[in-house]
Amino acid sequence: MCSFLPFQVSPGMPRDRDSSRFSDNMGRTIHHFLNVSSFSEYTVVDVAHLVKVDPALPPEKACLLSCGVSTGVGAAWKAAEVVEGSTVAVFGLGAVGLAVVEGARLRGAAKIIGVDLNPQKFELGKKFGLTDFVNPNEIGERSVSQVISEMTGGGADYCFECIGLASLMQSAYESSRKGWGKTIVLGVEMHGQPLSLDTRRILEGKWITGSLFGGIKAKTDIPILAKKYLDKELHLDSFITHEVGFEDINKAFELLNHGKSLRCIIWMDK
Amino acid sequence: MCSFLPFQVSPGMPRDRDSSRFSDNMGRTIHHFLNVSSFSEYTVVDVAHLVKVDPALPPEKACLLSCGVSTGVGAAWKAAEVVEGSTVAVFGLGAVGLAVVEGARLRGAAKIIGVDLNPQKFELGKKFGLTDFVNPNEIGERSVSQVISEMTGGGADYCFECIGLASLMQSAYESSRKGWGKTIVLGVEMHGQPLSLDTRRILEGKWITGSLFGGIKAKTDIPILAKKYLDKELHLDSFITHEVGFEDINKAFELLNHGKSLRCIIWMDK
Repeated sequence: MCSFLPFQVSPGMPRDRDSSRFSDNMGRTIHHFLNVSSFSEYTVVDVAHLVKVDPALPPEKACLLSCGVSTGVGAAWKAAEVVEGSTVAVFGLGAVGLAVVEGARLRGAAKIIGVDLNPQKFELGKKFGLTDFVNPNEIGERSVSQVISEMTGGGADYCFECIGLASLMQSAYESSRKGWGKTIVLGVEMHGQPLSLDTRRILEGKWITGSLFGGIKAKTDIPILAKKYLDKELHLDSFITHEVGFEDINKAFELLNHGKSLRCIIWMDK
Repeated sequence: MCSFLPFQVSPGMPRDRDSSRFSDNMGRTIHHFLNVSSFSEYTVVDVAHLVKVDPALPPEKACLLSCGVSTGVGAAWKAAEVVEGSTVAVFGLGAVGLAVVEGARLRGAAKIIGVDLNPQKFELGKKFGLTDFVNPNEIGERSVSQVISEMTGGGADYCFECIGLASLMQSAYESSRKGWGKTIVLGVEMHGQPLSLDTRRILEGKWITGSLFGGIKAKTDIPILAKKYLDKELHLDSFITHEVGFEDINKAFELLNHGKSLRCIIWMDK
């Protein structure tokens, strides 16, 4: 399994352009794939993408810190800098969305509202710190932003979009509080649609941004998250819903495609 | 002249709903106009919109702090929190834009780039702290954001839109630095156009917001600006290009319409 931690590449990060000099034990060239290059026995990653973690951290937990969980926790911690006692709304409760919930809980948010079409996500989200839930199918004529505005007395201090839909980014922005609300987009828009903002509403003082890795700096921040797990502050175990051997990798993708797993650990050596 | 300081109203600010009980010396009811109610001998403003300033501050200087100059200086100071040594780009060098330049200078910005179609604005802007200038008509095939990216080694830390054009807001956003650049919209979009943002670019970590009054809290912040003027830190005099008596108010509007004045003081008692 991936006990090393190859990271998602941020724009401008240096890349090893000389990977062609690496080969496997049969002499075949080993290439990058998205600079992550996982699901393989041998791989080539730039030293910038490697992080040393405490050996006490089990590898099946460590690998969760290489992308989704760090992105979500990082978004609450580093990108949004959620403050104690604040209100948070998370749009989409997949692994990244639930990691935002976890991050918001760690930062001491008072109210953490999840927005998802799947009603089962409320119970699941409570494990990470979710306090409230909005199912867009169950609010009648009202819009999600109206409901969140009522729940928070004017809009959430922080909104996170964790799906990748321009319409949901807009809804998140509308759900954030006038004057200081921050919206963080984590989802990659799946249809390539632009985000359209009403220029009169922009003057209301809300902020919007997006983040590829939650603002995490891997070398320094991943070890902090690892320590938080070992200190029993950061929940990682609940993200692991399945574990399979490498020969069942397609089963792992199937579970993901059907929304049945949060994170499925793939063991390379089982 | 307006020696009291009636302020632009922020959304949610309490308004005096009982203005009908006020009347002039002929018994006629005095109403609000945009909660500012200036250009009149008598007026009604809510106590929330009044600020006590040091009597040492001449009224023709004090009145500059009631809107445009405070908005611009405030945008650099309170909304963007410009940090020392940073790079700033200001789109549109009217009074508000020049006030942003002034605010950025006060905050210690290292490079302050003005963007304007009028080449004379460079010399004018230097009075307030402008260090560089881009005339979109004089950059050939390149876009403004390309030019600013080159001038700043990757994009300005802070961009301010001070005109009110969605296309310029987009240009400002594109000119800001990946990872942490902030764009602050101060202009009211004059055609009601929405701002369209590329959702892939949003993930680059830039922030965008807008502000009605630069984030200024009148009661506490205007006296600070007044003190900065009296301490010769804040330039106000250079904003005053004309002074007229009340009977020439239409001349003042004409100067403004033709872009010939920055701020024209209208004396009520001259």
